[in-house]
Amino acid sequence: MKYIYSFCEGDASMRDLLGGKGANLAEMTKLGLPVPGGFTVTTESCNYFLKNEGHPVGFFEELKEKLAELEKSMGRKFGDSENPLLVSVRSGAKVSMPGMMDTVLNLGLNDSTIQGLIAQTGNERFCYDAYRRFIQMFGDVVLGVSHDKFEEALSALKEKKGVTLDTELEAGDLKELTLTFKAIIEEEHEFPEDPMEQLRLSIEAVFSSWNNKRARTYRNLHGVPHNIGTAVNIQVMVFGNMGEDSGTGVAFTRCPSTGEKKFYGEFLMNAQGEDVVAGIRTPKCLSEMERDLPEIYKELCGFKDLLEKHYKEMQDLEFTIEKGKLYILQTRSGKRTAHAAIKIATDMVSEELIDKNEALKRIDPNQLKQLLHFSIDPNAEYEVLAKGLPASPGAATGRVVFTADDACEWTERGEKVILVRKETSPEDIHGMNAALGILTSTGGNTSHAAVVCRGMGKCCIAGAGDITVNKKDKKFIASALGTQVLEGDVITLNGTTGEVILGEVPVSEPELSEDFEVLMGWADSVRRLKVRANADTPEDAKLAREFGAEGIGLCRTEHMFFGEGRIDLMREMILSKDDPDRRRAALLKLLPVQKEDFMAIFESMEGLPVTIRLLDPPLHEFLPETDQRGKTEKLAGELGLSFEELKDVIENLHEVNPMLGHRGCRLGVTCPELYEMQVRAILTAGIDCRKRGVAVRPEIEVPLVGGISELQVIKKIIAGVAFELRDEINFEYKVGTMIEIPRACLTADEIAKEADFFSFGTNDLTQMVYGFSRDDVGKFLPKYLEDGIITEDPTATIDREGVGSLMKTCVQLGRKIKPGLEIGICGEHGGEPKSVKFCHELGLDYVSCSPYRVPIARLAAAQAVLADG
Amino acid sequence: MKYIYSFCEGDASMRDLLGGKGANLAEMTKLGLPVPGGFTVTTESCNYFLKNEGHPVGFFEELKEKLAELEKSMGRKFGDSENPLLVSVRSGAKVSMPGMMDTVLNLGLNDSTIQGLIAQTGNERFCYDAYRRFIQMFGDVVLGVSHDKFEEALSALKEKKGVTLDTELEAGDLKELTLTFKAIIEEEHEFPEDPMEQLRLSIEAVFSSWNNKRARTYRNLHGVPHNIGTAVNIQVMVFGNMGEDSGTGVAFTRCPSTGEKKFYGEFLMNAQGEDVVAGIRTPKCLSEMERDLPEIYKELCGFKDLLEKHYKEMQDLEFTIEKGKLYILQTRSGKRTAHAAIKIATDMVSEELIDKNEALKRIDPNQLKQLLHFSIDPNAEYEVLAKGLPASPGAATGRVVFTADDACEWTERGEKVILVRKETSPEDIHGMNAALGILTSTGGNTSHAAVVCRGMGKCCIAGAGDITVNKKDKKFIASALGTQVLEGDVITLNGTTGEVILGEVPVSEPELSEDFEVLMGWADSVRRLKVRANADTPEDAKLAREFGAEGIGLCRTEHMFFGEGRIDLMREMILSKDDPDRRRAALLKLLPVQKEDFMAIFESMEGLPVTIRLLDPPLHEFLPETDQRGKTEKLAGELGLSFEELKDVIENLHEVNPMLGHRGCRLGVTCPELYEMQVRAILTAGIDCRKRGVAVRPEIEVPLVGGISELQVIKKIIAGVAFELRDEINFEYKVGTMIEIPRACLTADEIAKEADFFSFGTNDLTQMVYGFSRDDVGKFLPKYLEDGIITEDPTATIDREGVGSLMKTCVQLGRKIKPGLEIGICGEHGGEPKSVKFCHELGLDYVSCSPYRVPIARLAAAQAVLADG
Repeated sequence: MKYIYSFCEGDASMRDLLGGKGANLAEMTKLGLPVPGGFTVTTESCNYFLKNEGHPVGFFEELKEKLAELEKSMGRKFGDSENPLLVSVRSGAKVSMPGMMDTVLNLGLNDSTIQGLIAQTGNERFCYDAYRRFIQMFGDVVLGVSHDKFEEALSALKEKKGVTLDTELEAGDLKELTLTFKAIIEEEHEFPEDPMEQLRLSIEAVFSSWNNKRARTYRNLHGVPHNIGTAVNIQVMVFGNMGEDSGTGVAFTRCPSTGEKKFYGEFLMNAQGEDVVAGIRTPKCLSEMERDLPEIYKELCGFKDLLEKHYKEMQDLEFTIEKGKLYILQTRSGKRTAHAAIKIATDMVSEELIDKNEALKRIDPNQLKQLLHFSIDPNAEYEVLAKGLPASPGAATGRVVFTADDACEWTERGEKVILVRKETSPEDIHGMNAALGILTSTGGNTSHAAVVCRGMGKCCIAGAGDITVNKKDKKFIASALGTQVLEGDVITLNGTTGEVILGEVPVSEPELSEDFEVLMGWADSVRRLKVRANADTPEDAKLAREFGAEGIGLCRTEHMFFGEGRIDLMREMILSKDDPDRRRAALLKLLPVQKEDFMAIFESMEGLPVTIRLLDPPLHEFLPETDQRGKTEKLAGELGLSFEELKDVIENLHEVNPMLGHRGCRLGVTCPELYEMQVRAILTAGIDCRKRGVAVRPEIEVPLVGGISELQVIKKIIAGVAFELRDEINFEYKVGTMIEIPRACLTADEIAKEADFFSFGTNDLTQMVYGFSRDDVGKFLPKYLEDGIITEDPTATIDREGVGSLMKTCVQLGRKIKPGLEIGICGEHGGEPKSVKFCHELGLDYVSCSPYRVPIARLAAAQAVLADG
Repeated sequence: MKYIYSFCEGDASMRDLLGGKGANLAEMTKLGLPVPGGFTVTTESCNYFLKNEGHPVGFFEELKEKLAELEKSMGRKFGDSENPLLVSVRSGAKVSMPGMMDTVLNLGLNDSTIQGLIAQTGNERFCYDAYRRFIQMFGDVVLGVSHDKFEEALSALKEKKGVTLDTELEAGDLKELTLTFKAIIEEEHEFPEDPMEQLRLSIEAVFSSWNNKRARTYRNLHGVPHNIGTAVNIQVMVFGNMGEDSGTGVAFTRCPSTGEKKFYGEFLMNAQGEDVVAGIRTPKCLSEMERDLPEIYKELCGFKDLLEKHYKEMQDLEFTIEKGKLYILQTRSGKRTAHAAIKIATDMVSEELIDKNEALKRIDPNQLKQLLHFSIDPNAEYEVLAKGLPASPGAATGRVVFTADDACEWTERGEKVILVRKETSPEDIHGMNAALGILTSTGGNTSHAAVVCRGMGKCCIAGAGDITVNKKDKKFIASALGTQVLEGDVITLNGTTGEVILGEVPVSEPELSEDFEVLMGWADSVRRLKVRANADTPEDAKLAREFGAEGIGLCRTEHMFFGEGRIDLMREMILSKDDPDRRRAALLKLLPVQKEDFMAIFESMEGLPVTIRLLDPPLHEFLPETDQRGKTEKLAGELGLSFEELKDVIENLHEVNPMLGHRGCRLGVTCPELYEMQVRAILTAGIDCRKRGVAVRPEIEVPLVGGISELQVIKKIIAGVAFELRDEINFEYKVGTMIEIPRACLTADEIAKEADFFSFGTNDLTQMVYGFSRDDVGKFLPKYLEDGIITEDPTATIDREGVGSLMKTCVQLGRKIKPGLEIGICGEHGGEPKSVKFCHELGLDYVSCSPYRVPIARLAAAQAVLADG
C-alpha cells in the first residue's frame, strides 16, 4: 500500500484517494503551474487510522521519505535551525466539507528553527509574527485550546503597548507573545518543539476531525457517506506578507454574479490569506494589478486561461506572490449565482468548450428558484428573529397582520402586508392572496400555507416553532430574542432559507434571461418524463403553460366551493345531510359555476391533459369553527337555524384526526350527489368546449382510494352521468385514481383493473407511511433533521427507503396488470430535483408540480436521463 | 354433464355440487332413512344459468327423466288430474344462507290436479288449504307479487265470514280464496296452470335469488364467495296436516342450551311446519310423544342415534308424520350455545365419537365470549333505541350518566351506571372504571373507549352515530326513534351486538365450566403460537394468568402517569418544557411510584416475559382541554400560572392530527428525560425483585418507530441508564420495537439490526395503511360495511390484502437479518380468531390480547395448527 502521494504523482481523477484539494494540486503540478511543492496523505490512510486508532506499518517511513524529497527539491530542511522548511497542513475531503479541522500554517517552527527563518528572510518581525500565528493555530485547532485565551492575551498585550492594530506590534512584542502563547498551551498540553511531532499531531487532528459532530451533521444533511474519509495536504509555505513585493489574492475565471466572461478577483499586497478574510484592509481589484504588476498579471491570466480550458469549467483560484514570484495555491470550480450558472453554461457551449448535455448537468435545478422568485440580496446583513421551514421560496417585506380580513383591508389601502398565523385554512385564501408573504408557527412543508403559497409563487415560512402567535392581541413573540412584534411592524421573510427578519432588507426581482429559455429547450429535448403543473384556476393554468407545463397533473376543485355565493350553497348542501333531494337541489345551483370554471381551464390548456381531482377535503372545512361565535351566529341566521342547531352540526362534523377522516372518495360514497354534480360539470364543460372547437382531455381523478371497491362505487357514479350524456360526449376522457393511501400501493394490482391512470399523491402518502401529520410535524421534525435522525425532510424529498419502496411496489403491481398504465406524481415532490430523478428511475410517465417549479422539474428530468449514462 | 342427482345418487361429501341440504338428503337416503323421494339440481346448473341466462342443452330432458323416476317410485304422476304428484322446491347452498328464495310447497297443484288430490285424500278442506297456500307462496316468492295483497284478501274473507282464525274457514271459503288469489296474481302476471311450467319458474327463481341484494350482502359480510351458486331440491310432499294421525316437528340429538345428552325437541299433531313457526298453537315436548306415540317415538330415537353416530355431530332434525308414517325431511348440525358446544365436544371425546383435535375444531372461538361476559338472555324481547359498533362484548343495565365524575359519585351511593359520552379520553378512566358499561356516539373498534373496555372486560358500544350526546344538558337523543334519554334513565347495552336498549333487560352471568378448562388444555397442547395478554396493572396481570396468558405482550405505561399525585408531577414536567433540569426533577418524583408499579407487575408474572411500552400518547392528553375553563383555571392556580399562560401552553400543544403527531418515541427523542426515568424505573424494579427472589423478564418496547435512527437514539438513552446500573442488573432484558408505522415494515431489515424483538401494533398500523382514524371512522365505516365496500371491519379483523401484506414484508425483511427474531402482535387483533390464524401463518411467535380474549386466542391458535392439516 502507498499512503502518501507527491503532488507530481497524482492527478485530477484521483479525488477519491487524494480528496478534491489534493487532486487539483496534483493536476496543476502536472500542468506545470507554479504550485508550491508538497504531498497528500490519502483518504485510505485516514480510514485506516480511524478504524485502527493508529497508523499502518511503514506510514512514518513513507512520510519521512516524502519530506526528504521535498527538502531536496526546496534545498531546505524540516526542523533545521539554519535553513528550515515550513509547511502548511490542510484537510481535503472528496467533497468540500465545512465542520472539519481546516488549516495549520507555518508548521515546522520552534525556538530553534525560528532563528533559521530569521536568517533566511532577514525580517525578524515577520518571523515572530509567523511563529506566534503558528502556536495559536496549532494550539487551537490541533490541541483544542480555547481560541479566546490567545485572543485575550493578544488584546492584553496591545493594551499594554497602547496600540490598537496587530500590525502596530513590533518584533519584540511578537516574540513576547510566542512565550505567552506557549504558556497558555502548557497549562493544558505539552507543546511539541519537535517539528516531526507537530506534523504527526496535525495529521491525526485532521483525521479525527472527520468524525466530529459538526462534520457528521454536515454529512447527514448533505447525504455524504461517513466512510470515505479525508485526505491531508502538506505543502511548502509561501508567504504573501514578506514585504511590498509579496501579496495574495483570489480570482474567478468568469464573473460569479453575472457569468460574464471577464477575469474577476481581488488581491492585497504584503498580506496573508487570513488578512483578506479579516477585512482589516480593503482588497484591490484585479484591474489594478494589471496596472501595478503587469508582468504578474499577464502570468496569472495565462494560468487562468489554461485552467479554465483544462477543467472546462469556471475556476476559483487562490494565488500568492512571494517576493515577486507568483504561486497558485488552489483551484476549484467556482460558486456562482443561478444567473451566472446559466450564462456560463450556455456560453461554454457556444465556445465549444462543453456540449449541451454537459451544460445541463452543470446547473443545480434548485438554484433556478433564484430566477423565479424575489430574493434577498446575498450581501445584505441582517439579524434573524426566528427560523422556520423554507416552505415556499422568495422574499417579501411588509407590515405584519394577523387575520385574512386584515390582510385584505390593509392591502386595499395600499399597504404591503405579511400574514402571520398559527396555521392557515382554506378560509384564509383571500388574505393569503392579498399578502406578499405568509409566516406560520406550526405546520410543515406540505401544510396548507406551504402548498397554497408554492402554488401562488408566494414566499412562505412555515412551522417557525420559535414564535408564539397571539391572534387576539394581534402580536407575536419570537422567543429566541424575546422580541415582541405588533400589528403593523415591518418584517422581512426569506422563504428560501426560512429566516424571519425584523425590519426591511433589500430584495431583488426575478428575471428570466434568453439563456434560460435556450437551456430549457435543451432540457426538453433530453428528458423522458413529461412535466405537468398543479393548477386550480385558468390563471394558474396560463402561468403553468408559460413555464412549459405539458398539461395539468392536479386540478384541485376545493376552491370552486369557496368564494362568494358558492360557499353558501355548499353549506346548504352540508346542512341537508339526511335529505338527498335537498342536497341535490343545492348542488344543482353550483353546477353552472363549476362548469364555467372547468371550461375556462380547458380553454387555457387547449387540448392538453387536465387531471381533475374530485372533492377531497372533509366537509367541516366549509363551516366556521365553533369558537368563532360571531361568524357562526351570523351563518346560523342566514341559514335559518338557531346558533345551537348549527353548533351541533359543526360539532358533529368535528374530527379528531381530519387527515384520516371523512374525506376524499369517502365523501363520494356517503354523498354521491356531490361527485355526481362535479362529474356533470366536467363532462358538460367538455361538451360545450368541443362545440366551440376547443379540444379537451379531462382525466377524472378519484382521491383517497384505499381499495378497488371504492373506485368501483365512484366509477358507477361517473358512468351514470356519462350514460345520460352519452350522445353528446365526443371526446376521450379517463377515470383514474390518486395513490396516496399505503393500502392503495399494496393492492395496486387490483386497483389497476379499474383505473385508466394512477397519480401518486406523495404528500399524504408520506404522512401515512411515516405517521407524520404535516400540520404537527413542526414539533419534532426540526430536531430530527438537526440530529440527523432523518437526513432529508421527507415532505420535501421523497424518502426512497420507505415511501419510495411502496411506490415501487405500486408501479410493479399496477403495470403487471396493465403494462401501459399511465402513472404520474402530483405531490409536492414533483418539483423537487432528487424526487424527480427517483420518479424517472421508477418509470413514471410524468411529474406534476406548482407552476413555479415547472422549469426546475424540466431540468431535473433531463439530468435524470443524463445520469442514466 | 349431469345436472340433476336423485337423492339416491349423492352423499354427504357432495356439498359443493348438491348444497348442504341436498347432500344431507342424499346421505340420509343412502343410510336407509325414510326420506321422501326427490332429486337435487346442482350448483353447476345454477352457475350455468346465471352466466348464460338460460339452461344448458339437455337440462329439461334430464329434469323430465328425474321426474319420471320419482313418479314411478311414488306411483303418482306430476300434473295428473287423478293421482297427482306434489313436490316442494327448496334452495340449498353449500353454506346455510339467509336472503335467498326459500321454499315453495305443494307445487303441482292446479284446477285440474286439485281434483285428484281430493280424490286421493278425501279431505276437500285440506286440499283447498294446500292449494291456496301454494298459490300464495308461488305468487309471492316466485312471481314477486306483494305478500300483503294475499294477507289482505284473507283478512277480508275472514271478516266477511265473521271468523278470526284461518282454521275456522271451511273448504268452500278456501276454494273461493284460491280464485281471489289467482285474480291477484293475474293483475301482474299470468298464473301458470302447467305444473311443469310452475317447476321451471320455481327453479329459475331460486337460481336468480342467488344474486339478489340481501344474499350478496350476506355473502359479503360472511366472506362467502359469490361464484359457488346454489342447488335446488325437489322433493315429494308429505303432509303433517292430514288429520290427527299426522304431525310435524323438530328435534335436537342433544340439548342445544346445555349440551346435555338428551333427546330434545317439539312437535305438533295435524300441522305443517309453518304452523309451528306461526306460533298459533303451542307445540308439545318430545317426552309427550314418547307417551302418546311410543312406536313412532322409538323409531325417531333410532334415527336420531343413527344420524348422530353417522355424522359424529349433534344434529337438528325436521320430521313429518303422514297418516302414522314417519318421514325425515332434513338433518343438519344443530346450532348451540357456547356452553353446549363445549359440553358436546368434550362429551363426544369421552364417548370416543371424535378425537380431541376434532373437538377443538368444533368450537367457534368467538362463541367463547358468551362464557366470559354477562350476556343478554337470548329469548328476551326488547326494542332497540340505537345501534353502534359492538366494541366490547357483554351486557350491562344501569342509569345513564354523562361525566366520569358523575359515574363515580353515583356508584359510590350505590347506583349502577352506564357512562354515555361522545368519546372518552384517558382522563375518564376513573369514571369508566366505576360504570358497568360505556356508550359513545363516535369512535370505532379501536377507539379509547373500546380498547379500555375490552381490557377491563367491560361492555362497550362505540360509534353509535344515531345518538347525539348533549353533555351540557345531560341528555342524549336517539334520532331513529326521536327518543330523549335523560340523566338517571335506565338503559341496557348489548355489547355483543351493539344494541342500545331503553329500560332493563334480563342478563345472565358468565361462568366457566370444567369442560372449558379441559378443552383449553387440549388447545394448549396443540397450538404453536404463544398467547400473552395486554395488561397494564397487577390486577390485569393476575386476571391474564388466570385466563392462561404466558406473559404480558403489552404493558402500557400511560396510566402510571395519571391518577392522584402523579398527573400533577407529569404536568409540572410538561410545563418546564425548556428546562431539562426542572423536567428531570419533576420526573424524579415519579420514579419511585412507577418503580413500585413495575415491581407489582413483575411479581404477578413470576418470571414470565413482560413487554413494557415506553410512554406513547401525546403530552396534551395530560392537560385539560381549553374549553374546560373551570378545570384549566384551577390547574393554573395549582401550578402558579395565570389562566392565560396555561391556556397558551395547552394551545401550543394542541395538534391537528394527534394520531400522527408528537407521540411515541418522538417524545423520547425530544424529551429524553422522560424515557430515562421510565427505563430507570423498569430496571431498578427488576433489581429489587431479584433481591426478593422474584424472577423477571422485562422487554422494553419503543413505540412508533419509523426508522432505525430513532431506535438508535432511544437505545442510547436505555444504554446510558443500564450502564449506570450495570453492577446491579443480574437479569436478562430485551430492547425491541413496536411495529405500527408503515415505514417500519418497509425498512424492517434495517430496524432488525437494532431490535431484540418486534411487536406489531396493528391498531395504528391499520389506521395508517387505510388512512382511517379510529376516532373518526364512525362517519363512513358503517356504510362501507353495509354496502360491502369493505367486507370485514379492518379494525376488528386484520386486512390480509393491505395490512397483512405489509406485515408479511416486515417479517420477511426482519428475519432475513435476524432469523430467530422474536415477533409478536399486541394490537386488538391478537384476540380475534381469523387474525390469530393469520399470525400463525405469518410465523409469529405470539399474539397478545386483552385478558378476556386470552381463551379465544388459545383456541384460535390451536385451530390454526389444525387447519394447517
